[in-house]
Amino acid sequence: MIRTIAIAAGVFAVAAVGGILNYAGADPVAVFLVTGAALGGVAWVIGIATESVGARFGPAVTGALQSTLGNLPELFIVLFALSAGEVVVAQFSILGSLFANALLVLGLAIAAGSWRASDGTMRFGARLPNDTATLLLLAVFLIAILGLSDQVGDRASEHQVEISVAGAICLLIVYGAWLVGYLRSDRRTEAALVEQSHPSLPFGPAIVLLALSGVAAAFVSEWFVHALDPAVEALGISKAFTGLVIVAIAGNAVENVVAVQLAWKRQSDLAISVVKNSVAQIACFLYPVLVLCSLAFEDRLTFVVAPVYLGALALTAIALWQITGDGRAVLFEGLALVSLYVVLATLVWFE
Amino acid sequence: MIRTIAIAAGVFAVAAVGGILNYAGADPVAVFLVTGAALGGVAWVIGIATESVGARFGPAVTGALQSTLGNLPELFIVLFALSAGEVVVAQFSILGSLFANALLVLGLAIAAGSWRASDGTMRFGARLPNDTATLLLLAVFLIAILGLSDQVGDRASEHQVEISVAGAICLLIVYGAWLVGYLRSDRRTEAALVEQSHPSLPFGPAIVLLALSGVAAAFVSEWFVHALDPAVEALGISKAFTGLVIVAIAGNAVENVVAVQLAWKRQSDLAISVVKNSVAQIACFLYPVLVLCSLAFEDRLTFVVAPVYLGALALTAIALWQITGDGRAVLFEGLALVSLYVVLATLVWFE
Amino acid sequence: MIRTIAIAAGVFAVAAVGGILNYAGADPVAVFLVTGAALGGVAWVIGIATESVGARFGPAVTGALQSTLGNLPELFIVLFALSAGEVVVAQFSILGSLFANALLVLGLAIAAGSWRASDGTMRFGARLPNDTATLLLLAVFLIAILGLSDQVGDRASEHQVEISVAGAICLLIVYGAWLVGYLRSDRRTEAALVEQSHPSLPFGPAIVLLALSGVAAAFVSEWFVHALDPAVEALGISKAFTGLVIVAIAGNAVENVVAVQLAWKRQSDLAISVVKNSVAQIACFLYPVLVLCSLAFEDRLTFVVAPVYLGALALTAIALWQITGDGRAVLFEGLALVSLYVVLATLVWFE
Repeated sequence: MIRTIAIAAGVFAVAAVGGILNYAGADPVAVFLVTGAALGGVAWVIGIATESVGARFGPAVTGALQSTLGNLPELFIVLFALSAGEVVVAQFSILGSLFANALLVLGLAIAAGSWRASDGTMRFGARLPNDTATLLLLAVFLIAILGLSDQVGDRASEHQVEISVAGAICLLIVYGAWLVGYLRSDRRTEAALVEQSHPSLPFGPAIVLLALSGVAAAFVSEWFVHALDPAVEALGISKAFTGLVIVAIAGNAVENVVAVQLAWKRQSDLAISVVKNSVAQIACFLYPVLVLCSLAFEDRLTFVVAPVYLGALALTAIALWQITGDGRAVLFEGLALVSLYVVLATLVWFE
Repeated sequence: MIRTIAIAAGVFAVAAVGGILNYAGADPVAVFLVTGAALGGVAWVIGIATESVGARFGPAVTGALQSTLGNLPELFIVLFALSAGEVVVAQFSILGSLFANALLVLGLAIAAGSWRASDGTMRFGARLPNDTATLLLLAVFLIAILGLSDQVGDRASEHQVEISVAGAICLLIVYGAWLVGYLRSDRRTEAALVEQSHPSLPFGPAIVLLALSGVAAAFVSEWFVHALDPAVEALGISKAFTGLVIVAIAGNAVENVVAVQLAWKRQSDLAISVVKNSVAQIACFLYPVLVLCSLAFEDRLTFVVAPVYLGALALTAIALWQITGDGRAVLFEGLALVSLYVVLATLVWFE
Repeated sequence: MIRTIAIAAGVFAVAAVGGILNYAGADPVAVFLVTGAALGGVAWVIGIATESVGARFGPAVTGALQSTLGNLPELFIVLFALSAGEVVVAQFSILGSLFANALLVLGLAIAAGSWRASDGTMRFGARLPNDTATLLLLAVFLIAILGLSDQVGDRASEHQVEISVAGAICLLIVYGAWLVGYLRSDRRTEAALVEQSHPSLPFGPAIVLLALSGVAAAFVSEWFVHALDPAVEALGISKAFTGLVIVAIAGNAVENVVAVQLAWKRQSDLAISVVKNSVAQIACFLYPVLVLCSLAFEDRLTFVVAPVYLGALALTAIALWQITGDGRAVLFEGLALVSLYVVLATLVWFE
């Protein structure tokens, strides 16, 4: 517990440094790097605090809390990006979180898990991977027909906001129905899982940490988004790469590195559960919520995605299902997922 | 039996009213609504009569009869639409039948079946869903390469009719091979299924009903197609929405509401069989037959489909396989299928 | 053994005739036909010699040899085509080998195997088909995002060579990881398989045959590619059809006809193994190796493929997985795969 609080204090210190640099008008690249690191740390603190708070109320509440709070940094980044008119960064950071979790983190977790398995095969329950595949296919369907309609430029393409809103509501309903069923049937399993995943904090400090890290997430996100534009200009990185790779990893994927550690410790089911829940949440909870939130802004977020990312998303959903749907995975399959991420990042690098 | 004949008489009466309105030159919207309702009823009567006639000869003949006669109203609508030069309505009503059955009806059936299952999981034989997925993927492959070639506008796109004809023949051969294998191996199962699905009529009345409803289907379809153009103009509905949603539900999906009832009565296998056979028939029997028939018309029906519907079709085939291929389905999966239909219908509404 | 050497002698005789015709400046159509036939024969001789040499060192070496030498004729054709500036023929013959093996040969093997099975169902181990699906999906992912980026013409499309090289290295790493795992776990099974698949030759003659057929492959490929352009012009066949169908079957698929024979002899696992290994090799070994080799030429080979073939490739990967992933296949599924090939060949005929 003391170690956890010490790390949290360190994270807040880095965040404070980011704030000072921001208000002192320091080099945007420095602000960008410091706040980026702080964001990853804050995401990790929120993860621990959420689970510790949830531990008091049982797994159902923990699940609900995680859905709402676990993606808080990502949520803030996208909201600040939208309010700053950076629609490309906003959308790419959502897609990037999906790719980073579904391809990079899952691939590394499978590589670690199969490497440490006595027969080279990592085994886990097949239900969650299949449920995630269903949810992901649902999101891809919505994104695909909107993206294709946009490409063709037909009459429906003038109503992308309305169709996106209808789609967002559908996604949230299905996600809610899935979450209820999942929490109900997996109550016992899930309880066992939650306890093991992080060193748990007592209730009081956890609540305080949660409040602090939530506030920190909001501030750090704003400084990060503010420094983003001049920083990537100075570094010569494309905006697509920033959103899809850097922001995605800082805002979301760092927390999920725990999945790779769990896989290494041979806790396959827990590792898969962390990544898969994360992927399902981003696609069917975070993205539609942000689409609905964006109605309050001038620049609307929609489900319309460029063909390259649409194709990548569809094939990611299918590859994910193909590789993990049978409840077993081996080394080369983990490498294949990581390779998909590398290829995608290479392409985005040149955009 | 008396109840069945009474309902059939009611359906014919509605059809007659539709005819009178048509020849009296009434408001096209009225003709459209009455004949639309009559079409749904006629489809239902044909369904009962076919099964009752088939019951005499065993399941193999019933299967063959259903393939040929069960889609009679749909067939007539498309033929009349083609002869009236309404190629968009013709093609969209075939695609719409596919979507309505594979997404809406199947989704509702799964929602009903899983809601009524003691553990929230609907269970059924996995073979038919997998066979349907194979057949659907075959049709999607053909449609995809033709549609993509059309988009690019390459040299092959000038020979769409020839390629469609070759593809139609391939589809029919594969469908025939599947049907033979399916009827042979499932003879006993199927027999049990057929008996339960509808209140059976004696052979004599069934033949008479079949003949009457076949004739009625032809006439009502003509009146319906005739009223369609001015009616949708007056109602301000897009032609795509009419074909994909209204005609599809009137011409084909109404009959399959029986699948939802069966699922509610916990007859999972039968419910799945009704929907799946329907989907396979439309994609691999009705569509290719209509492509071949259209050679006799001035306006040819091909497998070339706009990218939006091509994408929707491919993802429908994959989602269908993913959700039902393991022989079990839960509530959120049913809702996911229904959501896909809602999203698609929303998009088409704006076309 | 004498029979094998007699056939090999016949093949070399045909190759020699091809060479004489080539240097005598004969009608290109004659050269094209004779060298095409010789190529198929040489591919078959290399297959036998490789396995016989490998038999001495055990299955791991055989596997490695097959990866490197089995695709030798294909490799030479593509290299000569690239050096002659025939990029379309080069790329199409790789894609064509994939389609010919994955659709035509596998479809025929399934049709043969299920026809001869007592209950109409061909059964085989499900692992290799699933592994092949993973590898194929990986290659399709790379091809898809490059192809889509090319279609849109975004900034990444100017860096296709760099991205293709990065992708090729990823594919080779994953393929290597898969091959190591596959050879290690299947050592015993594979050994049994290798012995049965071909009449084995003694080590000495096998080495001589291998050297002779390797040299023959190089010469015959050059004559074949040289005659190709005027020959297809004279015959009025499109270049796409030549690459995708004729070269593919001559250079690669002929050898795999053995898979159909094995299926007919009820050796399902072996038949599936031959086709599946072939497909995985082309997609994840031969194609990336050729992309890397092409860096030495003026005309570069990339993974950028026209949308029609991209769609066909994606659906081939999915259909392959869907049909064989469960370890069983029936007649109509074999016919479905053959149909996909027929439809594709019909389309390409009109290009």
